[in-house]
Amino acid sequence: MAIVLGDGQYGKAEVRLLRVNRGASRESTSGENTSDDEIRDLNVTVTLRGDFGACYTEGDNSVVLTTDAQKNTVFAFADHYGVSEIEEFALRLARHFVTATESTRVARVRIEQYPWDRVAGHSFARSGSYVRTTTVTCSDASEWVVSGLTGLTLLNTTGSEFRAFLRDEYTTLAETSDRILATDVVARWRYQGAPGSWAGGESWDLAFEGIREQLVTAFAETYSYSLQHTLFAMGRAALEKHPEVAEIRLTLPNKHHFEQGSHDVYFAADRPYGLIEGTVTHDDAAPAGQAW
Amino acid sequence: MAIVLGDGQYGKAEVRLLRVNRGASRESTSGENTSDDEIRDLNVTVTLRGDFGACYTEGDNSVVLTTDAQKNTVFAFADHYGVSEIEEFALRLARHFVTATESTRVARVRIEQYPWDRVAGHSFARSGSYVRTTTVTCSDASEWVVSGLTGLTLLNTTGSEFRAFLRDEYTTLAETSDRILATDVVARWRYQGAPGSWAGGESWDLAFEGIREQLVTAFAETYSYSLQHTLFAMGRAALEKHPEVAEIRLTLPNKHHFEQGSHDVYFAADRPYGLIEGTVTHDDAAPAGQAW
Amino acid sequence: MAIVLGDGQYGKAEVRLLRVNRGASRESTSGENTSDDEIRDLNVTVTLRGDFGACYTEGDNSVVLTTDAQKNTVFAFADHYGVSEIEEFALRLARHFVTATESTRVARVRIEQYPWDRVAGHSFARSGSYVRTTTVTCSDASEWVVSGLTGLTLLNTTGSEFRAFLRDEYTTLAETSDRILATDVVARWRYQGAPGSWAGGESWDLAFEGIREQLVTAFAETYSYSLQHTLFAMGRAALEKHPEVAEIRLTLPNKHHFEQGSHDVYFAADRPYGLIEGTVTHDDAAPAGQAW
Amino acid sequence: MAIVLGDGQYGKAEVRLLRVNRGASRESTSGENTSDDEIRDLNVTVTLRGDFGACYTEGDNSVVLTTDAQKNTVFAFADHYGVSEIEEFALRLARHFVTATESTRVARVRIEQYPWDRVAGHSFARSGSYVRTTTVTCSDASEWVVSGLTGLTLLNTTGSEFRAFLRDEYTTLAETSDRILATDVVARWRYQGAPGSWAGGESWDLAFEGIREQLVTAFAETYSYSLQHTLFAMGRAALEKHPEVAEIRLTLPNKHHFEQGSHDVYFAADRPYGLIEGTVTHDDAAPAGQAW
Repeated sequence: MAIVLGDGQYGKAEVRLLRVNRGASRESTSGENTSDDEIRDLNVTVTLRGDFGACYTEGDNSVVLTTDAQKNTVFAFADHYGVSEIEEFALRLARHFVTATESTRVARVRIEQYPWDRVAGHSFARSGSYVRTTTVTCSDASEWVVSGLTGLTLLNTTGSEFRAFLRDEYTTLAETSDRILATDVVARWRYQGAPGSWAGGESWDLAFEGIREQLVTAFAETYSYSLQHTLFAMGRAALEKHPEVAEIRLTLPNKHHFEQGSHDVYFAADRPYGLIEGTVTHDDAAPAGQAW
Repeated sequence: MAIVLGDGQYGKAEVRLLRVNRGASRESTSGENTSDDEIRDLNVTVTLRGDFGACYTEGDNSVVLTTDAQKNTVFAFADHYGVSEIEEFALRLARHFVTATESTRVARVRIEQYPWDRVAGHSFARSGSYVRTTTVTCSDASEWVVSGLTGLTLLNTTGSEFRAFLRDEYTTLAETSDRILATDVVARWRYQGAPGSWAGGESWDLAFEGIREQLVTAFAETYSYSLQHTLFAMGRAALEKHPEVAEIRLTLPNKHHFEQGSHDVYFAADRPYGLIEGTVTHDDAAPAGQAW
Repeated sequence: MAIVLGDGQYGKAEVRLLRVNRGASRESTSGENTSDDEIRDLNVTVTLRGDFGACYTEGDNSVVLTTDAQKNTVFAFADHYGVSEIEEFALRLARHFVTATESTRVARVRIEQYPWDRVAGHSFARSGSYVRTTTVTCSDASEWVVSGLTGLTLLNTTGSEFRAFLRDEYTTLAETSDRILATDVVARWRYQGAPGSWAGGESWDLAFEGIREQLVTAFAETYSYSLQHTLFAMGRAALEKHPEVAEIRLTLPNKHHFEQGSHDVYFAADRPYGLIEGTVTHDDAAPAGQAW
Repeated sequence: MAIVLGDGQYGKAEVRLLRVNRGASRESTSGENTSDDEIRDLNVTVTLRGDFGACYTEGDNSVVLTTDAQKNTVFAFADHYGVSEIEEFALRLARHFVTATESTRVARVRIEQYPWDRVAGHSFARSGSYVRTTTVTCSDASEWVVSGLTGLTLLNTTGSEFRAFLRDEYTTLAETSDRILATDVVARWRYQGAPGSWAGGESWDLAFEGIREQLVTAFAETYSYSLQHTLFAMGRAALEKHPEVAEIRLTLPNKHHFEQGSHDVYFAADRPYGLIEGTVTHDDAAPAGQAW
């Protein structure tokens, strides 16, 4: 009954990085549209797993790539290679970390990207409508890409009922044939393969936009018998249009809106809230491995 | 040297209210555009000042309108009168409270409105790009409207320098002729009069949109010598186009972005941050009274 | 390549419950010490897994115990049975839910408990020094208890070095033989069996207090070669004194404090931060099953 | 009707500073109690007002002490002079800034101090029970000290009623003769003079501890007819024992706890909440000047 080290991992969390992709105007004097800058506003987290036991148990740091160096690498790669699609950037970083030191067996890079809207050629306003995410995991032999979004808040003013549910002795909820349905979408989907291998030859960016659109549209267009029912419709819609997605996991809080004596006036409650989670998958999807 | 009660106020804070303004489709079968629903998503805070001393010092509640009743009033008014412009809704509530009880001398209603984008006829996605605010104050004799916004995050990738500043023994900052300029705008402006009395005959909504546009445009188009310099340009632009605004107060954190060995890669720092505040005013603006 | 439902679960999150355990004074007139009230301030989350597929895919709610009823059950059980140790309360709830409906196969109840300090017999001040947690999972056949804490912030002013680490081309960090070590402890440990079966016959409360004490003491007394090294020392200390713990998982952010030209003055940085995670386990611990 | 600059101010916000006051052990080998370290964990905000108009309107930075230099000064002073009582440290900084540049007329330094409990000689656990605050304002001619606390959460399980309140058409609240009373105390009090001039010759630290104790005790011991009533009792208790306090301002949210069918089980609601504010003052207190 010895006491031993089990699973572990370590890394640098929340490296807040802004990458400016300068337009041509700095080099030219043309002043054309192509001179617009673009920005990538990221929050990057690196996590390493491997043969780090001696560090934990013996205080032997000789196998430890410092988290400070990991941070430096994120900034250096953003400079050397630029940042375009976050999946590509995360892959580049994760592949580097898994080969950079002997001790690292698996490297995971998680990125949150905050979208901005262009106001003028070099000016931007942050869009708070959602955050795009990716989690890339690389071992020596394999790599996995799970992308998604958080903070997408959706609401239907009608087209949602909740009836004919099971009743036990603690059930007091009234049935409703027309309620507000509102949620903050957290979605994560696992890709099979990479853009080059996909039927449509899409890019990571196009896939993201397409899947986001499917989720929003399915939420809006599904006549809802429950938030669970809407969840499945959203996931199915995404998979139908995007065969490159093996599975999608959705976490949907039920943001309750309680009628205040009128069908048009609601109290938007904070807590408690229903929390609905579910996975929609192709039945022949490849195993997830270490993707999640 | 007696111990006495000084200024005080009380009320109900953060009543989270959703008002659905139903389109015609519920009553008709036409299915036209006019059938779209609209929503108002509000956070309402009521504050009362007046002759409430006996409650504090004697425990005499006979002069106290309960905060629960204040909350009920917010929901009831949203039902009876609907919610269109938040300034109008706040005025209606504040006027009610200042007359509802003898003890209330001044009523203030503060509203935050969360904007949503339409996805489909009855479906919406919350836009996180800013929060619209108003603070309305009514006494028996006067009323004041201060509107504004928070959470508007802006960034310029160029067109900002910071040089030729004062140097003391603790100054180590290098001058820069080209830096990232980024801030989270908090703006509040005091109106003179109400829409009917304005030259342009505008509505509260149009005034808000116009001022917001001026702030964004001035931020984008001003070649900046400092964030203070940009602040004044933003305020001036708003007042130039909107004579109905007596004064505008801006609070602009300087969201520092530090170069990481490259002019294109930045670390977006959290704390500390510069904090720049300023007022831009018409020199003949009417006194502010109890507006703020 | 059909699209099908995968894993899912649903429930009610963050039921904020205060339970007052009244002292005797209400029934007696003695006014003795035993008349003191006690309080339990909880945040309860219920999650159910089972045969709910028809709800997701068909909109069939007949198998769904509403999350509203789950909330009602939490309050009703707090009344009927009282709340003493959170593990017991969570077990009672989870056992109920797993048997209450045919469709539920596994019920999980997670509780956060906010500690309060007594100020006087019926008066309390909330202690913000940590939050106690438990996650209890029950199936028809088995049950698992994982308890822990969050928000415990610890700091050593000396006794911490970080040297002799691996260096790659991106490593610029200087070695240090005396630094600030600070972290926010998140700990979760899995119990084997229940209090009655433990060697020491301890209660859940005593076990919690003992383990917390071990974590704090080991943090303070370990001369640290790295936060990983301190993590293992903390976990080992807990397991050595508490054989009822099968394994403990620790998540320790490295709250960086950067010297400001002096060994006594530090900038406490927000982001990025190191993030160190690890498990310490008995090598013959029973399998974890669905505990986590 | 020219557009002009009105009031403004600028500075550096939220400088997160840890100061270690090393015990003797580093210099001696005795290992006595005196060898314990002490820490001061601060969040410092500097704000300057003065003749900065040219910076805003002309982009003239020659009058601007950079916020970066302000930050450097905070760290340098912490090193040169140490940090003991936050009021003293804030006074030292504010006096410096008001004299450091010609343009500064008024300097304000606001500090939040996070308390820690000692675990061992060089080890600490952060206490989350409250945050101590001070706001010091210095002009050439005068200085003001306003100290306080935030985040002190108090709760009484009995001894609180709310009855005989005014009823209007929107009032539906039931009277209660025994309810939970809970609040998060925000208190700020203005001192007259400085420790040397006080009757009791107290220090800033002793005054703070005494006032905090009075607030807590008065909350616990007052039979409450309303939160307003409790507020006044708290303020009066503080002023009675501490004549060095000219006035105290209290902001007390009413953290509603709603009975769940039992007098012992409550739902702790988030929003909305009552918000009670009030000032208790000596009737002959010196004018507040620019203290607030």
